[in-house]
Amino acid sequence: MRLVKSGGGEVLLDLLRNQSVDVRSDCGGLGLCGKCVVKVLSGAFSESSLSERRVLGELILDGFRLACQTRLISDEALVEVPESSLTTSYKSVDVGFEKPFDLSPLVRKHFLKIPPPSLEDQRSDLSRLLSGLEAPKIPLKLLRELPQILRGCGWEVTATLRNNELLDVECGNKESELYGLAVDVGTSRIVIHLLNLRSGETLAIASSPNPQQVFGPDVMSRIAYVSSSLERLEVLRQDVINSINELILEASSKAGVRPENIYEVVLVGNNVMTHLLLGVDPANLGRAPYVPVFTQGLEFRSGEVGFRINPNGYVYVGPGIAGFVGGDAVAGALAVGLDECEVPCVLIDVGTNAEVMVNNGEELYAASAPAGPAFEGFGTRYGLKAVEGAISKIFIYFNEASGDYEVRYEVVGGGKPLGICGSAYIDALAHLYKHGIIDERGRFKNVVSRRLKREGDQRFVVVWGGESGINEDIAIYRDDIESLLLAKAAVASVTQIVLKEASIGFEDVGKVFIAGSFGTSLNVENAATIGLIHESWVNKAVFVGNTAISGAKLILKSSIARKKAEEIARRTKYVEISANKEFTKIYVRNLFLPTSKSSQEF
Amino acid sequence: MRLVKSGGGEVLLDLLRNQSVDVRSDCGGLGLCGKCVVKVLSGAFSESSLSERRVLGELILDGFRLACQTRLISDEALVEVPESSLTTSYKSVDVGFEKPFDLSPLVRKHFLKIPPPSLEDQRSDLSRLLSGLEAPKIPLKLLRELPQILRGCGWEVTATLRNNELLDVECGNKESELYGLAVDVGTSRIVIHLLNLRSGETLAIASSPNPQQVFGPDVMSRIAYVSSSLERLEVLRQDVINSINELILEASSKAGVRPENIYEVVLVGNNVMTHLLLGVDPANLGRAPYVPVFTQGLEFRSGEVGFRINPNGYVYVGPGIAGFVGGDAVAGALAVGLDECEVPCVLIDVGTNAEVMVNNGEELYAASAPAGPAFEGFGTRYGLKAVEGAISKIFIYFNEASGDYEVRYEVVGGGKPLGICGSAYIDALAHLYKHGIIDERGRFKNVVSRRLKREGDQRFVVVWGGESGINEDIAIYRDDIESLLLAKAAVASVTQIVLKEASIGFEDVGKVFIAGSFGTSLNVENAATIGLIHESWVNKAVFVGNTAISGAKLILKSSIARKKAEEIARRTKYVEISANKEFTKIYVRNLFLPTSKSSQEF
Repeated sequence: MRLVKSGGGEVLLDLLRNQSVDVRSDCGGLGLCGKCVVKVLSGAFSESSLSERRVLGELILDGFRLACQTRLISDEALVEVPESSLTTSYKSVDVGFEKPFDLSPLVRKHFLKIPPPSLEDQRSDLSRLLSGLEAPKIPLKLLRELPQILRGCGWEVTATLRNNELLDVECGNKESELYGLAVDVGTSRIVIHLLNLRSGETLAIASSPNPQQVFGPDVMSRIAYVSSSLERLEVLRQDVINSINELILEASSKAGVRPENIYEVVLVGNNVMTHLLLGVDPANLGRAPYVPVFTQGLEFRSGEVGFRINPNGYVYVGPGIAGFVGGDAVAGALAVGLDECEVPCVLIDVGTNAEVMVNNGEELYAASAPAGPAFEGFGTRYGLKAVEGAISKIFIYFNEASGDYEVRYEVVGGGKPLGICGSAYIDALAHLYKHGIIDERGRFKNVVSRRLKREGDQRFVVVWGGESGINEDIAIYRDDIESLLLAKAAVASVTQIVLKEASIGFEDVGKVFIAGSFGTSLNVENAATIGLIHESWVNKAVFVGNTAISGAKLILKSSIARKKAEEIARRTKYVEISANKEFTKIYVRNLFLPTSKSSQEF
Repeated sequence: MRLVKSGGGEVLLDLLRNQSVDVRSDCGGLGLCGKCVVKVLSGAFSESSLSERRVLGELILDGFRLACQTRLISDEALVEVPESSLTTSYKSVDVGFEKPFDLSPLVRKHFLKIPPPSLEDQRSDLSRLLSGLEAPKIPLKLLRELPQILRGCGWEVTATLRNNELLDVECGNKESELYGLAVDVGTSRIVIHLLNLRSGETLAIASSPNPQQVFGPDVMSRIAYVSSSLERLEVLRQDVINSINELILEASSKAGVRPENIYEVVLVGNNVMTHLLLGVDPANLGRAPYVPVFTQGLEFRSGEVGFRINPNGYVYVGPGIAGFVGGDAVAGALAVGLDECEVPCVLIDVGTNAEVMVNNGEELYAASAPAGPAFEGFGTRYGLKAVEGAISKIFIYFNEASGDYEVRYEVVGGGKPLGICGSAYIDALAHLYKHGIIDERGRFKNVVSRRLKREGDQRFVVVWGGESGINEDIAIYRDDIESLLLAKAAVASVTQIVLKEASIGFEDVGKVFIAGSFGTSLNVENAATIGLIHESWVNKAVFVGNTAISGAKLILKSSIARKKAEEIARRTKYVEISANKEFTKIYVRNLFLPTSKSSQEF
């Protein structure tokens, strides 16, 4: 229940959004999609419109209204916004859902007032500092500095420990200056979060493109690039390390944190990214049977890896599963609690690779398939990532007044459109199919519309040149649809195969977590319309954002979460798609858009 | 029971020694000391001599003989040598007694025939290698080499592990090439033992003087030398590291071992030696309250310390107790099983510092006092270490024929004498006192003897110039006796104080372990005569040799022994002598040689 106040006559949708209530509006406020339905409890409103009555029917009598069609006339009103009218998107591709864990980081600080030595108490400096700690460890350099530090600080110091190893000794009480970094090294994007490990708070977020992109857009091309060249491997390693060091500087200065007070980095990524970052040759991941050098969670001294944090600090590389299911997927499973679902549940992470993990109530399964870059804004004529200027949502409708199809869209940042991102392509595909403009093979049908251009390359115009920021039409081409169908076929097929391996059907699934940069504005009904997800999953889907980074944060903040990540990695059965004899058959079927018939057998 | 065979008429003592039976003979075969008593069971022997009958009395009737006075006449004979007639000395100062422990080194090797990867088994290289090992660790460099090694070796490799960390991967079966080093860094001497950790066997021993000696003969002078100079500390650190690296090369080449196959070094030493070796400033050990920087057992990567073994190998510095009771003393306690005595027991390690540890049946106690270098062959006129040419035993007797005192002695290596070592000084002191040549204050009495020179510096001639290897008389001077009494007072006093702290008397002690280079030829009766040890301990004393090195070997060979060493270090109560108000009183009393009266109250 929400109290809204009016300056006079504003649209309810705008009033709610100004209060940061994320009300859905797929059609962009035309009163057509019916997603912005709210219930008015008090206050005076404008009369219901024709479209409103058409969409809501008898619900109007129970006080339901479309927020986009309703103006508030009284000074204030009480309004109830149903769950189903809210979007659960993440504002940024750099954050994600995080299951709560108790704060129990591996590094901790203790402020100590140490009794100075005397003839009655001759314990060594180290025993005095770590009184009672058995089998302590200490880097030799710190041991050499220890007597000076203790005496110079008047025996009042803060000791930083990780397990039983002493990492740092500082003068005075520095307990609050305990920081850690979570890092998600994606194929195309690096995200870091700087955390206060005493409070659990996130102090700063920084991100940048993965500089290795110039050597190949996807993991396979990067493997090919470094293949049998240690020099190239070293270049790629340096590039990503330098980028992360720059992000560390950026985040530390934003948060006013000294990098020396960062004691641990938890890093996740797909297996190729972690191999390249550590300077480990990923060649054998590039050919059957696709074997990584390591998948276990491994820890290294910060200097060994090359990160500029406390020199005695550690880098923990989160555990992966096998082949192309890496630590980012495990982090995602950890973040959403995939291992603890009470009903069978699924995690779908759509990136250049699509990873699907399933918990059938007993066992965990994972698989991965290359989806191609279409959903990520590559390989389509006007494709863009979800950056400023990208169209993130598309709504196509038939305007009876003009007698033609019209398009509403949303642009990231609000300016003139420059291109189309993955979620909007899915919207467009779904709407073109629903309106009969394309058939189930994605071919343009014989429909009359100014927007459907048949001369030259066939295309459907989304934005006329006069409205666009690039002074030309922004359109969806026949080839784009082909690429999108290939990508959706990959995701749908890998989902299907994993479910089959887990011996459950689509209807058995109780919850579907959709992760990846995608989740920020994906329309789940449209995803179901094109068959990216099963139609029965529309009301079970939850958008969880970038769960690679949120899982990495959990591992950083909680030693229990770290153990759980290792357990998830160990428990999960890897399903190799290339070894699956049915894959091609399923994949070819999924290249079609679902019909009511195909949907049944799906 | 031993069968001896004769070529005709040889002395029984020689026949037995030729068989490596170490029969005692304090007087050097004069038939005076009675230490070489044996029982003859069969065979024909020479008639008993006068001196034999005087020494043995009625035992002659039971078949007992002095081996030095008895010639074998028949071709062969059966002889029984009682335990008390055997010396239990160690042939070298570089070895010591070792309580048996099961072989369970921390590093171990496993030869593995690994199934190559396939689409049915896509585990990572590391999982495949360490199948089933949880939370493995691996140095980054080795991880980078791993895929090449595994494939280059056709998946048949030997993995070297320490705890859960992979240190090495080699082609083929190299299980037998698993080596470790035990190192005893003494103030004046460095000893290393190269061990096969698969068999437990010692393959080579190497030793050298501690090169830091040129910067000061004892710990205090070395602390003073490096005090507040990081450059000097670094010079001393480098010196000892270089020496040990040379010994490692020497021992490895002697044993035909590649230094890369040495995976662990266990190093013990007093706290000043371990501090200097690690480059840790020992300044606070040089002034009250004598606090070391560390006493705990600590481990470092070999490269961190600077040892040239496997680069991924480890150096474990054994735990010490406090102040001047270091890891060498703990290793000693471990080697003799001091913590497990069924009756109260004592370990005395006499070096430049004397360390005494006591187990009173419940608790362990330890203390240390600087004994000065007199027992080690320094600071006396003709003092020598127990090296070739040093007199190691002295026997003074009154020769009725000549009407004067005569001296028998043993020389290390058998050549002409060059000087006198610690154990021989103790013999001399005891005999001079027993014969009334010196009084209880160590002053020469008014005795008539050609050997007693009163002109100039008073002295007693042990070897006449004509017999000596230096063409001058080798004598014991009044000042020498003074230095020896200071040293014996230190040992006796620290023993007394520790016993008092442990609430037990001399008679309560059931076993006395005498360690140090000393133990090789110390005459326990003479040690009691001068009050170095209590008279009631004569039959309880066992010589255990260099237990610092033997304890270090145990720590290397057995992880159970390692835990026990840490437990001993933790359990032992340190008794600070400088804080003990009674020490001076007791010390002054111990400067006297014991009289029957003083011995009572002792």
